[in-house]
Amino acid sequence: MKYAFTNIAGSFILNTNLDIIDEVLFSTPEKFAQRELLAKTLTKKYPDVKPLPTEKIPAALQHFRNSKYVPLFYANNLILTKQSVKRAVNEDMLITHTIANITEVDKVANILSKRLREWYSLTLPELEAKITDHYLFAELIVSKTRAELLKELKLVDQNSMGAALDKKHLEEMILLAKQIRQLYALRQQHELYLEKVMSQYCPNLLALAGVTIGAKLLELGKGLKHLALLPASTIQLLGAEKALFRHIRSGSRSPKHGFIINHPLVQKAKEKGRAARKLADKLSLCARLDYFKGEFKADEFKRELEERLQGK
Amino acid sequence: MKYAFTNIAGSFILNTNLDIIDEVLFSTPEKFAQRELLAKTLTKKYPDVKPLPTEKIPAALQHFRNSKYVPLFYANNLILTKQSVKRAVNEDMLITHTIANITEVDKVANILSKRLREWYSLTLPELEAKITDHYLFAELIVSKTRAELLKELKLVDQNSMGAALDKKHLEEMILLAKQIRQLYALRQQHELYLEKVMSQYCPNLLALAGVTIGAKLLELGKGLKHLALLPASTIQLLGAEKALFRHIRSGSRSPKHGFIINHPLVQKAKEKGRAARKLADKLSLCARLDYFKGEFKADEFKRELEERLQGK
Repeated sequence: MKYAFTNIAGSFILNTNLDIIDEVLFSTPEKFAQRELLAKTLTKKYPDVKPLPTEKIPAALQHFRNSKYVPLFYANNLILTKQSVKRAVNEDMLITHTIANITEVDKVANILSKRLREWYSLTLPELEAKITDHYLFAELIVSKTRAELLKELKLVDQNSMGAALDKKHLEEMILLAKQIRQLYALRQQHELYLEKVMSQYCPNLLALAGVTIGAKLLELGKGLKHLALLPASTIQLLGAEKALFRHIRSGSRSPKHGFIINHPLVQKAKEKGRAARKLADKLSLCARLDYFKGEFKADEFKRELEERLQGK
Repeated sequence: MKYAFTNIAGSFILNTNLDIIDEVLFSTPEKFAQRELLAKTLTKKYPDVKPLPTEKIPAALQHFRNSKYVPLFYANNLILTKQSVKRAVNEDMLITHTIANITEVDKVANILSKRLREWYSLTLPELEAKITDHYLFAELIVSKTRAELLKELKLVDQNSMGAALDKKHLEEMILLAKQIRQLYALRQQHELYLEKVMSQYCPNLLALAGVTIGAKLLELGKGLKHLALLPASTIQLLGAEKALFRHIRSGSRSPKHGFIINHPLVQKAKEKGRAARKLADKLSLCARLDYFKGEFKADEFKRELEERLQGK
C-alpha cells in the first residue's frame, strides 16, 4: 500500500510508515508550472498508489520541516503569490486608476488656470473678468495675440488696465496656457479610453451612467462585483459618505444623493431625491446585468426613467 | 488780478470773485495727455495771472460740482487710474508671478507623479520601489518599453508582480508620464526666463542667492524696493513667519532661518543658524546694491562667505 501526495514543493510517494520513497521536486519555475503533469507521471509508476488520506496529512507534513524542502517551499510560494497579484489586475483596477487620475487632472488644471488668470491679468485684466471658462481662457491666450484679444474686447491699449508687456514676458504665460490645454486634452483622451474599456466590461452601466459617473461609481463601489452586490440605496449615496455619517452621528438631515447628483437625469429633475432613488435602482440593475454578463437593457431603462421623471 | 488753476478736468482762469472767465477743457484723452502744454498756452493770454493761492482752492472747487464738469472728472480719473495700474506692472510683479507658478508647477508635478507611480505599479511595481526620483520615473516610462524596464531591473515577466498589460492600457500611463515630463520642462523654462529678467533687474541678488531663492526672496519680501529696506535679520527669517509667530505667542524656540535654509552655503554649514545670519547680511547688501543701481559685488561676497563658513 502506497500513498501519493503533492504540495507546492513537489510530488511524493509515501509508504505505509509515511516515509518518502520516491519524489519529483518542483525545483524550477518551469517544473512548478507543470506540476499536475509531473504528479501524474510519478504516480503511474506505482499501480497500487492511493491519494494520502486527509487524517494522515499532518503526520506526512513533518517531512517538510527538513531543510531540503524549505527553500523550495519559499521559492514556489513566492511565485504563486506573484501570480495571484498579477491576476488581481483587472478592468476594475484599470478603470479606477483612470478615473482617479481624471479627478487629479481636473484639480491640477484648476490650480494652474487660477494662476494663469492672475498672471495674465498683468497684461489684460479685462479678459479674466469676461471669460469664466478655464479651458476657453487658456485656449484664447494660446491662439490669439494680445492685440487680437484687445480688439475682441472692444478695447484700445490705452483703455486697458494691463501693461503692454514684451513678447518674452508674454511667452511664459503662453507656455503655461499650453500646458493647461494639454491637461484638458489628456482628460479627454482618458475618457475615450474609459469608454472603450467600459463598453466591453460594463456596457449597461456605461450607457446609463455615462463615462465619468459610471467610472466613478466603479471606483466608489470598489469594483463591478462589489457594486453589483450593493443595494440600490447604497449606490444612491455613494460619494455622500461624509454627509451620511454626519447624519448618523448628529441627526442632521440624511443625504438624498451621492455622486449621481451629477447625472443629467437628476440635474434636470425637480425632486432630486426621488430622481436619484429611481436612477440608483436602474444603475444597480445595470451593474448586475454587466457582472453576470446579462443582456443589454440600459437604453430601455433610460427611456423608462426619462418618461417617469419628466417634469417632476 | 487773475488766477490760473488746473485740475484733471481742464485749465481755468478765475477772476478775483473766483468766477471762471476762461477755460480749456481736457475733453479727450489726447488733450488730457497734453495738459501741461495746454495750461501754459492758456495762461500766456493773461499777462497778470497768478497761480491760485492754496487757501482759495476749496472755494474754487465749488464750480466743479457743476454737471458740466463731472463727466470729465470721471473720465479723466479713470484714465489716470488705469495708467497708474499699468505702470505698477514692473519686474517685481513679473518675477513674483513666475516664482509663484514654479511653486505651483512643482506641487502639481508631485501630485501627478504619485498618481503615475500607483498606476504604473499595476504593470511593474518593482520600478516604483527602485526609482525614487519623480522626474526620472516619468522619463523612464516615456522612453523605455516595459520589456526594456524588466531587463534593467534584472527581472523576467514571470518574476514581476505586475500584469503584462495590453498596449492600449499602457498608453494612458505613458501619456500621463509625458505630461509630467512637460511640467518639468515648463519649470526649467521659467527658471531660464527668471535668470534673464533678474540678471538685468537684480544681478547681485541673482548671483549670490541663485534663481529660485532670489526670486522667492523677492516674492516673500514684496519686491526689490521693500526687500532692500528690510533689516538683514528679517531677510534671514523670510518664509519662517509661522515659526516666528509661534515663538512670539508660545515662547517656543525662535526660528534661525527661513527660506534661505535651502541655499547651498547654509546647507553645507554645520552651524546653520550662523550661516543663515551671515548669508542674510550679504543678501541684504545685494538687494540694496541692486535697488540703488550700485556696482556688482556679489562674487566678492560669495568668496568671503565661503571662506568664513568653511568647515563650520
